[in-house]
Amino acid sequence: MVKVTASNNVKAECVEEYLAISKELVERTNADDAGCIKYELCRDVNDPLHFVMLEEWEDQASLDAHMKSAHFTTLIPKTGGMTAGPPTLTLLEKVF
Amino acid sequence: MVKVTASNNVKAECVEEYLAISKELVERTNADDAGCIKYELCRDVNDPLHFVMLEEWEDQASLDAHMKSAHFTTLIPKTGGMTAGPPTLTLLEKVF
Repeated sequence: MVKVTASNNVKAECVEEYLAISKELVERTNADDAGCIKYELCRDVNDPLHFVMLEEWEDQASLDAHMKSAHFTTLIPKTGGMTAGPPTLTLLEKVF
Repeated sequence: MVKVTASNNVKAECVEEYLAISKELVERTNADDAGCIKYELCRDVNDPLHFVMLEEWEDQASLDAHMKSAHFTTLIPKTGGMTAGPPTLTLLEKVF
């Protein structure tokens, strides 16, 4: 299993649109992507402009396929101008 | 439910000891702490000195109680000198 945290700081004026696109991405990913164990958007309790996608995938291949999916490659570029900078992506493996 | 990511950069010479203490913390927390849904240590695939504790708690009260537990207050201070800086703690709520 591989895990990902994808962290984004969203511009205040873009939050509503960012949430709409992210909702579609979460729904499509959970419905369609083989090997997806978890894919959920979370919001920082102490910073309402900070969002983190928490992801769990069966293996690297399923994560790679997700990032090549039509929904990912269509929706992610739409959020590019809505964030204060590039996302911080961290690929994790459980130790214990 | 509340979620936490607790990120630490560990000094290379301290990794073995950090892992030993973290293992005890993970085991004690999962065994003893009411309201603990998930508490696991993960390692950054691209940075072997970067560790992230991924946590899920039933509510804020169970997280608060965890941080007052004997194992937390005994073990966490032991890791203080092993890290390159203070931990980065992020408290998260699922959006969808």
